[in-house]
Amino acid sequence: MKELKLALLGFGNAGRAFARLLLEKQEEIEARWNTRIVVTAIATGSRGNLTGQIQLQDALNQLEQNGKFTDPTPCSTMDIVINGDYDVLVEMTPLNIHTGQPAIDHIRGALLRRKHVITANKGPIAWAYDQLQDLARQQGCGFYYETTVMDGTPVFNLTEHTLKLAKVTEVSGILNTTTNYILEELAAGKAYDDIIAAGRKLGFIEADAAMDIEGYDAAAKITALLNVLMQAHITPDQVDRTGIEHITEADIQDAAARGKVIKLLCRGWREDGRVHASVRPVEVDRGDLLAAVDSTSSLVSITTDLMGKLSILEHDPLIEQTAYGVFGDLLRVLEEQ
Amino acid sequence: MKELKLALLGFGNAGRAFARLLLEKQEEIEARWNTRIVVTAIATGSRGNLTGQIQLQDALNQLEQNGKFTDPTPCSTMDIVINGDYDVLVEMTPLNIHTGQPAIDHIRGALLRRKHVITANKGPIAWAYDQLQDLARQQGCGFYYETTVMDGTPVFNLTEHTLKLAKVTEVSGILNTTTNYILEELAAGKAYDDIIAAGRKLGFIEADAAMDIEGYDAAAKITALLNVLMQAHITPDQVDRTGIEHITEADIQDAAARGKVIKLLCRGWREDGRVHASVRPVEVDRGDLLAAVDSTSSLVSITTDLMGKLSILEHDPLIEQTAYGVFGDLLRVLEEQ
Repeated sequence: MKELKLALLGFGNAGRAFARLLLEKQEEIEARWNTRIVVTAIATGSRGNLTGQIQLQDALNQLEQNGKFTDPTPCSTMDIVINGDYDVLVEMTPLNIHTGQPAIDHIRGALLRRKHVITANKGPIAWAYDQLQDLARQQGCGFYYETTVMDGTPVFNLTEHTLKLAKVTEVSGILNTTTNYILEELAAGKAYDDIIAAGRKLGFIEADAAMDIEGYDAAAKITALLNVLMQAHITPDQVDRTGIEHITEADIQDAAARGKVIKLLCRGWREDGRVHASVRPVEVDRGDLLAAVDSTSSLVSITTDLMGKLSILEHDPLIEQTAYGVFGDLLRVLEEQ
Repeated sequence: MKELKLALLGFGNAGRAFARLLLEKQEEIEARWNTRIVVTAIATGSRGNLTGQIQLQDALNQLEQNGKFTDPTPCSTMDIVINGDYDVLVEMTPLNIHTGQPAIDHIRGALLRRKHVITANKGPIAWAYDQLQDLARQQGCGFYYETTVMDGTPVFNLTEHTLKLAKVTEVSGILNTTTNYILEELAAGKAYDDIIAAGRKLGFIEADAAMDIEGYDAAAKITALLNVLMQAHITPDQVDRTGIEHITEADIQDAAARGKVIKLLCRGWREDGRVHASVRPVEVDRGDLLAAVDSTSSLVSITTDLMGKLSILEHDPLIEQTAYGVFGDLLRVLEEQ
């Protein structure tokens, strides 16, 4: 049986859900692809790093019982990237959305060593897609990133594998679930500060809520989509971005009185020979498809020259759906590499 | 350059749109797959058949100018299936929805000769999927049918190519656009008979409207989905089917007064060790996703163990989207065979 070695960078909720999925599907993978998946490195932010012969279930148990690894390896995350013994780097570290780092450096480091890369991190696709894709191609490596937008929902793969020869002419959608949730709670009559406080308590809204509320997360996601699907060659700072920070309860009530709902819409389109992108609150009719995207669901609509407009909707995902995105990319490594 | 020979059975609006797409994309296909696509047979219902060295543009022109082929080959459609010189049979003949014929016999005939098959015809997938798929596997042939539900919208390919190892646990959707259109027009206050008359005039509602209105078309489509996605091993007569023929304007007004909309919903689910299916009118909230599927749009929702619930929506397709479904399958023949 062949062996495929993984280095996991980042081992938060999504990383651990991915590890559980690997354990669950181990036999099925071995039977179908005649390959044993072995984890040879795990890097965490504050819980220590592990390298060597890792027993995945044991590593999960240690974190659950002690909150950290009991016998960590004294090395940095970059040490693992540069010197680790792996075939596939799985990049799931926390993101600086204004730079895409440190994920970009991790990915570049792995590609320079001719390792395949799977990233769940939108930053690299938003900030450095072209250079990383070119590098992967030069090095003959696989570079996979389905999870970066809408978890494991096939948006990149949908276009690549099921819409062959079709050219994407427009992309739009509701890509940030935090703002979608906030707008819905506001419409239900709750106060802004109460919503934020409740969302933080549930772990649903990040400490720095501005990333979502001011539209930075949405801008990074539409940029990632446009760079891959429309060869946009843009970065998130080129997105015409307006968040929901100035939307008041009165605005929402006023819209409701006219049968409208406010949604934070992302859009990308071609004009004057280049791709333009925007993120901004828009009013849509209550019966509109966009209005039906509720709570933590999200939606992307893709228009192509040959297949008109299609939309794909992810309904209230759990962390397992993020894990599946990474897992699906791993299965593509098994099939394609 | 390699050559791939096609026999086109059925040359109505969709068949001719497919032919135009072939002509338009000919160079791109030759460049990418180093293969010249050649049409060696065209069978029409009442316009005559053609075989031999067919100039596709010329064949299209003949039909446009004369309504039939000027120098048809004296042979039957079955002659082409059995004796024709082709690599891929493209089955687009008119369907008997109660039997799946004659498409099933055409497909079986081609597979027995070890030819690849593309069908745009839902009948064979609803009535004889298992036996045709088994035969294709035994004969080492490709058998493609993306167009049979929702035109070229990737529903079968979505699951096969982008949701690997995920098991489908439930399928639902709005699959019949004629009834969706009729229900919407009724809700807008138009009279049943006027809607049918107008739809017939526009060519939108078939002469035999019962196929749509009584839910036979929807039952065939949900059966096709369930046979492929959930290995249901069922036929359309096993679907618990209720059409919209008994829905009155009063029912719709009454629902509207309660903030509801009536939609013809198809569903399939596993229970007691087998797959059950139903087609029936249901009331949904006006803000619901199903309510947002308007006019000739359609929707399918697929729930899997690993990726939760995803929905894919096709917005107001044209005949070109049917043609693209067949075209996309042809590209898969080029890649996989």
